[in-house]
Amino acid sequence: MRFTPRGTRFFDLLADAAKNLVVATALLRELVAAEPAEREPIAKRLHEVEHQGDELTHTIMVELNSSFVTPFDREDIQALAAKIDDVLDFMDTAADLAVLYRIGTFPPGIDVLVRVLCRAAELTASSMPGLAKVGDLEPFWIEINELENEADRVYRRILAHLFEPGGDALEVLKTKEVVEQFELAADAFEHLADVVQTIAVKES
Amino acid sequence: MRFTPRGTRFFDLLADAAKNLVVATALLRELVAAEPAEREPIAKRLHEVEHQGDELTHTIMVELNSSFVTPFDREDIQALAAKIDDVLDFMDTAADLAVLYRIGTFPPGIDVLVRVLCRAAELTASSMPGLAKVGDLEPFWIEINELENEADRVYRRILAHLFEPGGDALEVLKTKEVVEQFELAADAFEHLADVVQTIAVKES
Amino acid sequence: MRFTPRGTRFFDLLADAAKNLVVATALLRELVAAEPAEREPIAKRLHEVEHQGDELTHTIMVELNSSFVTPFDREDIQALAAKIDDVLDFMDTAADLAVLYRIGTFPPGIDVLVRVLCRAAELTASSMPGLAKVGDLEPFWIEINELENEADRVYRRILAHLFEPGGDALEVLKTKEVVEQFELAADAFEHLADVVQTIAVKES
Repeated sequence: MRFTPRGTRFFDLLADAAKNLVVATALLRELVAAEPAEREPIAKRLHEVEHQGDELTHTIMVELNSSFVTPFDREDIQALAAKIDDVLDFMDTAADLAVLYRIGTFPPGIDVLVRVLCRAAELTASSMPGLAKVGDLEPFWIEINELENEADRVYRRILAHLFEPGGDALEVLKTKEVVEQFELAADAFEHLADVVQTIAVKES
Repeated sequence: MRFTPRGTRFFDLLADAAKNLVVATALLRELVAAEPAEREPIAKRLHEVEHQGDELTHTIMVELNSSFVTPFDREDIQALAAKIDDVLDFMDTAADLAVLYRIGTFPPGIDVLVRVLCRAAELTASSMPGLAKVGDLEPFWIEINELENEADRVYRRILAHLFEPGGDALEVLKTKEVVEQFELAADAFEHLADVVQTIAVKES
Repeated sequence: MRFTPRGTRFFDLLADAAKNLVVATALLRELVAAEPAEREPIAKRLHEVEHQGDELTHTIMVELNSSFVTPFDREDIQALAAKIDDVLDFMDTAADLAVLYRIGTFPPGIDVLVRVLCRAAELTASSMPGLAKVGDLEPFWIEINELENEADRVYRRILAHLFEPGGDALEVLKTKEVVEQFELAADAFEHLADVVQTIAVKES
């Protein structure tokens, strides 16, 4: 058994980082529902959440460097923190670009994409406290994979609609850049789930 | 010697997954030669092949979780299965997007790109049964790297042609999205070859 | 202590590969300052530098396969060589595409992006000889992360400017393809720094 009381500190920190994702997706939901002029303060709050995430990642790294016993291989704990960070980064970028590129209205379907991200964040937040029994997290990585597939399907439909003849190509190009960040966030959730699955395979 | 009779089961499953790639590239070749109206059934067949690939990956994971002895590190076998899956995903996406975005004619050069993917798939299918002597697979990863370089060169020429003044920007944008999937499939073959090379380095 | 005289050979080779990055970024700086008609010979020289990089990577791999003792895990040395290679590849691609797509003038801000890459290359070249004490390289990975953030900020501003209404969409599309390579090179520096940090975490 490699699980030690010492290890619970890492699980607590990773669970905190995952809770941050729920806050970030709620802000993203606000962002896509807001008028263009109201988006900047929401993007700023999301950026602060991303900054808090960076600090949590830093705490995890310091802790890793000073711990003799870790519940999993050091590089796997680092990978979990890095993947949570990636999800936050894509959501922060989505909000930043929406403001910077002065997106008019988000394309139809964006609310579905955000709903998928909200579900993935909640699922991650409720699963990270269970890392001590990583083999039991199979339902987590299976549902995250399904959510990523759904995000992908919705993203393609959004693009197909944008690409319909008659649109303004420059508008389409910049809208695509922003919506792509939502899809990359869904991908990043899947990469996080892949790390969890890899740890489970190692531990089995 | 870490190779055991038990291990051959993994090599058989990975060889089956690699054979699937040959079937998928043959369908891709059919797709780019077909009239737009004939593409949907081909894309559906490709999607079924992708689904069979998913099931093979699942079988490999279940096998990994129930085996005491594995021929390589568990996470390396998982990585091989995941990379083969990635190749299939990009090919499936290429076909799906071609239908969804109602691509008119594929740009000149696409047949060369598909030929490179066909060769990469055949090479992978004929090399996976040799995983037991992974150090001997150097010709595999060298040729896959050369094929990826060729795919890259062809892809850039296709784009250069699309970007020539006078084109319809929206058409260019959506065609680029589809052709990019072919190039990403070639990249994914290279990532698969990288995993094989990494295993060989570990085992040497 | 896992550091052995034998190991110094790897550090020397990786330091040589990193020096190559400094040469490449100097050529990139020349490229963006040159008239369109003068770019082809610069791109060719950059391609030769990339080719020398490939040969260094090959030497590192041969050395890895014939060494009984390595200063770090074999796959980590391989990953360092691969990441340096990635940086060079993106810079080589940037130059190749600028010529192939007949880019007119580079967009404002490109000089800032190149300056960030120059600094990242110098920092990498001066840090690689210190790999023997990898734990002391924290200032390296911290600054590379800051540089990547700066590259990202500059890249987004360049795109925001390109996306302003009234531009020619096809020109914007192809310019974006080229400038993206500069940003991907900055990303690749970060991935290199991530590997260094992961090695430090393992060794701590």
